[in-house]
Amino acid sequence: MATALSAPALSRPSGRAADALRTLSIEPGFARHAEGSCLIRMGGTEVLCTASVEGRVPGFLRGKGEGWVTAEYGMLPRATHTRGDREAARGRQSGRTQEIQRLIGRSLRAVTDRAAMGEMSVTIDCDVLNADGGTRCASVTGAWVALHLAFRHCMSKNIMKAVPLLDQVAAVSCGICDGVPVLDLDYAEDSKAGADANFVLTGKGGLVEVQGTAEGAPFSEAELLELLRLARHGTAQLFAAQRLAVGLPAGEPG
Amino acid sequence: MATALSAPALSRPSGRAADALRTLSIEPGFARHAEGSCLIRMGGTEVLCTASVEGRVPGFLRGKGEGWVTAEYGMLPRATHTRGDREAARGRQSGRTQEIQRLIGRSLRAVTDRAAMGEMSVTIDCDVLNADGGTRCASVTGAWVALHLAFRHCMSKNIMKAVPLLDQVAAVSCGICDGVPVLDLDYAEDSKAGADANFVLTGKGGLVEVQGTAEGAPFSEAELLELLRLARHGTAQLFAAQRLAVGLPAGEPG
Amino acid sequence: MATALSAPALSRPSGRAADALRTLSIEPGFARHAEGSCLIRMGGTEVLCTASVEGRVPGFLRGKGEGWVTAEYGMLPRATHTRGDREAARGRQSGRTQEIQRLIGRSLRAVTDRAAMGEMSVTIDCDVLNADGGTRCASVTGAWVALHLAFRHCMSKNIMKAVPLLDQVAAVSCGICDGVPVLDLDYAEDSKAGADANFVLTGKGGLVEVQGTAEGAPFSEAELLELLRLARHGTAQLFAAQRLAVGLPAGEPG
Amino acid sequence: MATALSAPALSRPSGRAADALRTLSIEPGFARHAEGSCLIRMGGTEVLCTASVEGRVPGFLRGKGEGWVTAEYGMLPRATHTRGDREAARGRQSGRTQEIQRLIGRSLRAVTDRAAMGEMSVTIDCDVLNADGGTRCASVTGAWVALHLAFRHCMSKNIMKAVPLLDQVAAVSCGICDGVPVLDLDYAEDSKAGADANFVLTGKGGLVEVQGTAEGAPFSEAELLELLRLARHGTAQLFAAQRLAVGLPAGEPG
Amino acid sequence: MATALSAPALSRPSGRAADALRTLSIEPGFARHAEGSCLIRMGGTEVLCTASVEGRVPGFLRGKGEGWVTAEYGMLPRATHTRGDREAARGRQSGRTQEIQRLIGRSLRAVTDRAAMGEMSVTIDCDVLNADGGTRCASVTGAWVALHLAFRHCMSKNIMKAVPLLDQVAAVSCGICDGVPVLDLDYAEDSKAGADANFVLTGKGGLVEVQGTAEGAPFSEAELLELLRLARHGTAQLFAAQRLAVGLPAGEPG
Amino acid sequence: MATALSAPALSRPSGRAADALRTLSIEPGFARHAEGSCLIRMGGTEVLCTASVEGRVPGFLRGKGEGWVTAEYGMLPRATHTRGDREAARGRQSGRTQEIQRLIGRSLRAVTDRAAMGEMSVTIDCDVLNADGGTRCASVTGAWVALHLAFRHCMSKNIMKAVPLLDQVAAVSCGICDGVPVLDLDYAEDSKAGADANFVLTGKGGLVEVQGTAEGAPFSEAELLELLRLARHGTAQLFAAQRLAVGLPAGEPG
Repeated sequence: MATALSAPALSRPSGRAADALRTLSIEPGFARHAEGSCLIRMGGTEVLCTASVEGRVPGFLRGKGEGWVTAEYGMLPRATHTRGDREAARGRQSGRTQEIQRLIGRSLRAVTDRAAMGEMSVTIDCDVLNADGGTRCASVTGAWVALHLAFRHCMSKNIMKAVPLLDQVAAVSCGICDGVPVLDLDYAEDSKAGADANFVLTGKGGLVEVQGTAEGAPFSEAELLELLRLARHGTAQLFAAQRLAVGLPAGEPG
Repeated sequence: MATALSAPALSRPSGRAADALRTLSIEPGFARHAEGSCLIRMGGTEVLCTASVEGRVPGFLRGKGEGWVTAEYGMLPRATHTRGDREAARGRQSGRTQEIQRLIGRSLRAVTDRAAMGEMSVTIDCDVLNADGGTRCASVTGAWVALHLAFRHCMSKNIMKAVPLLDQVAAVSCGICDGVPVLDLDYAEDSKAGADANFVLTGKGGLVEVQGTAEGAPFSEAELLELLRLARHGTAQLFAAQRLAVGLPAGEPG
Repeated sequence: MATALSAPALSRPSGRAADALRTLSIEPGFARHAEGSCLIRMGGTEVLCTASVEGRVPGFLRGKGEGWVTAEYGMLPRATHTRGDREAARGRQSGRTQEIQRLIGRSLRAVTDRAAMGEMSVTIDCDVLNADGGTRCASVTGAWVALHLAFRHCMSKNIMKAVPLLDQVAAVSCGICDGVPVLDLDYAEDSKAGADANFVLTGKGGLVEVQGTAEGAPFSEAELLELLRLARHGTAQLFAAQRLAVGLPAGEPG
Repeated sequence: MATALSAPALSRPSGRAADALRTLSIEPGFARHAEGSCLIRMGGTEVLCTASVEGRVPGFLRGKGEGWVTAEYGMLPRATHTRGDREAARGRQSGRTQEIQRLIGRSLRAVTDRAAMGEMSVTIDCDVLNADGGTRCASVTGAWVALHLAFRHCMSKNIMKAVPLLDQVAAVSCGICDGVPVLDLDYAEDSKAGADANFVLTGKGGLVEVQGTAEGAPFSEAELLELLRLARHGTAQLFAAQRLAVGLPAGEPG
Repeated sequence: MATALSAPALSRPSGRAADALRTLSIEPGFARHAEGSCLIRMGGTEVLCTASVEGRVPGFLRGKGEGWVTAEYGMLPRATHTRGDREAARGRQSGRTQEIQRLIGRSLRAVTDRAAMGEMSVTIDCDVLNADGGTRCASVTGAWVALHLAFRHCMSKNIMKAVPLLDQVAAVSCGICDGVPVLDLDYAEDSKAGADANFVLTGKGGLVEVQGTAEGAPFSEAELLELLRLARHGTAQLFAAQRLAVGLPAGEPG
Repeated sequence: MATALSAPALSRPSGRAADALRTLSIEPGFARHAEGSCLIRMGGTEVLCTASVEGRVPGFLRGKGEGWVTAEYGMLPRATHTRGDREAARGRQSGRTQEIQRLIGRSLRAVTDRAAMGEMSVTIDCDVLNADGGTRCASVTGAWVALHLAFRHCMSKNIMKAVPLLDQVAAVSCGICDGVPVLDLDYAEDSKAGADANFVLTGKGGLVEVQGTAEGAPFSEAELLELLRLARHGTAQLFAAQRLAVGLPAGEPG
């Protein structure tokens, strides 16, 4: 695919090929108190993901024998080029923050066997230490690792017999920059992309979330499909990195 | 298209065909003080959309010669089956509310020529009087009507020479219910759909927003495309209704 | 009475006689999910009133065998000449809002047989869609209709045997404009009245609330009594409209 | 009047006659930093009233050459029988608090010559140290004293030539207890009164505010008038005490 | 000690000697509803301290058989030279307020035998009526009196057998002004002190809290010790005043 | 000193000697966008400190030619043994948070030559990634490094000629555990210490802040002095680590 895409003399700010991810690393166990955690780095974006297990569920699930997985998201004030207000000081979370944490929670629930969990909850906290674009996608990808590790912790404590995950889930952003579809936008690209889309995909190829937005002119169906193809290419590498981080063999689904 | 879809003995709660919109009406001028307004009804969903014009722009745009269009969204406490908390009493807007109002604002800005507006703002308020599913989509569709009427009001006051809209924009939800893709979900369908997607499309066929979400199992690329096809079918009727409401001839773009 | 009042060549902005109400309509059942509801219109003022029934009472009443009736009030942002802040976005209800919702609740409780209700609550929501003065009074009048219909809904579900209302209650504003006492102020009059008073009266002629306020110079006892006389004249018509809306015969008390 | 009223063997909890005020004292200058202040005591109710002068007006008055008078009200947590939440800790003022501070502000503005003030503001703070009923009325009465003293302070600083007050203003509550109209309710009476009314009157006999409320059964026009008569009797004594506190001769208007 | 200190021609704004407290009075029973209360005056600083008893403890102590003592602090808007915002209107307590109320609570708990209290709570409210420096210290000193009186009230109701206080506790501020250590800073001194320290000491001489802060240049260990010596001198008088206020004989520990 | 202290068979949970710091590291430049930053680790406590420079000062300093240094503090939800509420979600910062950020700001200002800074501000954000006691002290120590690096960044941009710091500042906690004074408490010790004290000291030996608190029984003057001696011992090592992190030679003051 790279051949076709790089044809129109593309030059990305980072020098990457159109279908190249940024350098990626996932460091498990970064938070020492959490049942599961990792620090995920995608280029200049770093997100600390922690999973906290609690032996009870929210009111609307009580007595149904199912578990719950939810997420919160935050950005340290100076994760960005200029310092942002601390949301705790301002007294409310922004709409963007709430939108992102809802997305992370939905994505994880889509691959969790909540009946197999039993009545317990896992809260995933995704806190951005350094931001260079794609923080919500890195959060989803890292959150799955933290969740998997937390479930393994529960197994080691004999709270559960098997990891109640049906599949892996990971996310990546794609966009159209100067007319060319590219994978894994960094901040410089994100702020000038004509359209961008976040894809949350499963290890088996299913779509969990598609969020495409035209920042300027509307985009076409063909462009949407091209972006989806790039996303499949990128998430393949993310799935491999997740398996490495949690110690799963290279081939099996999560 | 209906032929193929209705093959598997589909029975929607409303008795509609898989590709049928609900009954639709747009009543312009419902709010007597607003520069533009309409009451849009899609089946049991009713949203009052008002457009308020102000001769100044937010700080980040000051001095740039461009206009601004933004939106707020609310739901009356008893628009739903059971009474919801009044957000003003609770002291904060929910994440869902903020997500929706950001979507409406982006959708309108995608078809607005903000340079042609000059330094003025329009705030669209979308307030749900009765809810039966699809309130965010009805809001986008009605908001365009209110915005168009507000611009026409500005023309009548000699504040602008032409309506600074590049196209029409409308939205519709689609989903997969019992394995069958259907158009324009009502509440009964929405709450049991396996996947649903909101499409914001322009009169000329462009995509402004695609928001697909798997509520249960992930969906496939083929299903996403089938939903998009239904959405194009549905928005064609929405565009016609918008033109009628603002008094544009049937064929030209907005 | 009209004779005496119109003597000093009165000219109201609306052309009405000093003792004339604005055109009045009450449309029952506007909100399709609420147990009781109506859309009340008094001239350019439109208020949607809904009654929501719940099978439990606030903590301070638990175990006492009595019911509770309370109210909330809101105004859509563009119900007025210039757009007002959305209270949910601002994060708190104004003092005016709270004052009005307390007034509505007290007025309804004054005619409700709370012992006969049993341990259940009704919350009345009054949301102003269009405002042209007198919104709190229209709210009280419409709220009674919504409450009556909700109790009738409970009867149809065999939750209660009879409507636990001791009387009708309705409200109207009066004021002194250019020295002349007039009935049912619209916004133009309200903003220049020297004094105004809101009267909440019962079908049998009792006073539930009297709120007289001098905006400029203090008013006299004689003026207060003249305003009360106008209010009795106006509420007689409101009581008739309420009975019509809930299907009660013209003469009996509510 | 007392003769007629005491006929039906009235026994008030305090042993007072039906038309008797509680013991009353006004101590000017209690707050040492404020431009004007007093501690007003009516029986067991004690309110500290301070007036703070500022050389500017709120935005809506800027450039109009008029002054502004406003009020805030608070109750110390243990001013009452059982400790109330501190509103600062709870993060919002109650509806009751806002209703009262609006009433105090309106009452003072009704007797203030705001054009004569020039562009300056006075904020009156009324803080209840001990509560035994009638705190809003004591606040109005004490607030006038604090305001008068603050204006005198401005005169002593050559900021103004004369006290810009057109009249005195004071308030008292009356109610119907066990069927008998009585003056100046204490807490024990207030909590069992069938109806009560707060009257804000001017030294010259005008009505500034009338707030009558039926707690139980509606009241009649005759009862309203009887309560007003008691209020006139009571405020005559309040006006005298105000004059004493600010050092005005006994007879002239404020 | 005074001899040595006054050597360098000290002149305090108040004319006091370096080791002199301001005039001090403690008026017990100021709040008529509270189980214990006092109005403490140290020079121009006046704080109303009330103790409210409740028969239950916060969640984290339930079932442990221990009591709880906590404190809240507030300042009336015009207790200071210029009017401060009402924290209730602003919707949140400042960091300073929270810091002070935590200090008061810790100080009281250090001398309370919480096991002997049994499962009950006392909330101390310290509200500053007039401020002239040292409000937090006056609050601690007055709070102990209110707490002692509240416990005595409980004894009179046969809720407890003895006052569960292990010792007295009082606080005073000291500081270095123009290079000279002085006792009990008033506002004029506090705002220009190079360093200041608040000491919370017990009747038996123990240290409960030491909070020393350099406002300008750092201070030395010798200076810290000199300030502590002054504080011991000052609190000896505070302990005597507390004993007087609660009716304890002059010598025994509280 | 260690000899005397270890006499009573001390056994700290960590096995450390009474006067031993935990393992310490300071990693400069952790945050890539901030003008200065470091990640400081003291045993299991990790705090990310960032310094953000802005070319303007708060209102109260405008036009005075001085700079400003302030701090904010936060703890990631799962920095601790059990997950804490996210303060942004709860809508307000706790009293503890505000107390700590005020302490950090004061400590830095005590060694900053604000006149030499000119009219600019530095905001230090201290965010705890992992908590094991002593987070406020680690924050002060790391904050000085971030501030120093930010000033050096300003020099490299020719905004300032020299680093406007008069001295180094660092903090350490000490406490009395089982009757023995120990240095640098970890969480296990902190939660059972009878008394603890935080000392903020300068490189030249001055005291900036002393905050001693008796958690149980009051402590004595001798104990306070012993804790101060331990703190001097510990901060000597902190000052050396700071110099290393910012590249200053080992001996000179900062």
